[in-house]
Amino acid sequence: MNAIDVTRALQTIDFSKAEGLIPAIVQDVDTKEVLMLAYVNRESLQKTVETRTTWFWSRSRNELWNKGATSGNTQEVVDIRFDCDEDTILMLVKANGPACHTGRETCFYRSFFDGWPKQAEDNGDVETPIASTMVP
Amino acid sequence: MNAIDVTRALQTIDFSKAEGLIPAIVQDVDTKEVLMLAYVNRESLQKTVETRTTWFWSRSRNELWNKGATSGNTQEVVDIRFDCDEDTILMLVKANGPACHTGRETCFYRSFFDGWPKQAEDNGDVETPIASTMVP
Repeated sequence: MNAIDVTRALQTIDFSKAEGLIPAIVQDVDTKEVLMLAYVNRESLQKTVETRTTWFWSRSRNELWNKGATSGNTQEVVDIRFDCDEDTILMLVKANGPACHTGRETCFYRSFFDGWPKQAEDNGDVETPIASTMVP
Repeated sequence: MNAIDVTRALQTIDFSKAEGLIPAIVQDVDTKEVLMLAYVNRESLQKTVETRTTWFWSRSRNELWNKGATSGNTQEVVDIRFDCDEDTILMLVKANGPACHTGRETCFYRSFFDGWPKQAEDNGDVETPIASTMVP
């Protein structure tokens, strides 16, 4: 992909909503599991294109965030797709470690159905946030 | 899933951000393709759980939206997962038709890489919005 393509691609994306932040879905290119969702502004999306690793905007820390820069759990970007409204990004990645801060492969490890909230107790060696936030 | 579980599951979700709207990723349970992303408020998520079809909040029309109610392209909800921060939903569905208003299976039919924007011209019989919005 050359520089002109990057410019054109970035110009196509609609950052006008939600203070310049749009959702970016991260999907494992091999297993096709949805790993996480984070938010990108124009700068973090450009860095993602340029470095072929995932960059997001942290809404809690108000700063750019290169996934795995400290943990080592980086994500190599194989493809970047965008939707018909041009306001959502889908990043297909090769994951060098778990996506979730709890140590799980995916952040979507809990389900409304089929045994919820049992899943939270399945893996005793990692954080189980639902146990403390659940309303009895 | 019984009524108590629904109440507990809905109470777990954090609707405090973005005026009570959180993103809901829709993934095909069989092909594992990511089909679309839309937004849910508490009411639309509850309707999704109760009816086992996808309900969203339309940000453009400011109304509840039952996917496929007019087009027939409904989505049967097989599972609803939520992420570690409890502010993003992942719906696994059986799709009764294309997810995208352009007639495509997925809304994510265009890529930054590998021939972009060629994909927009691949399917001459459906809308190709990028052709008109692209900046030369």
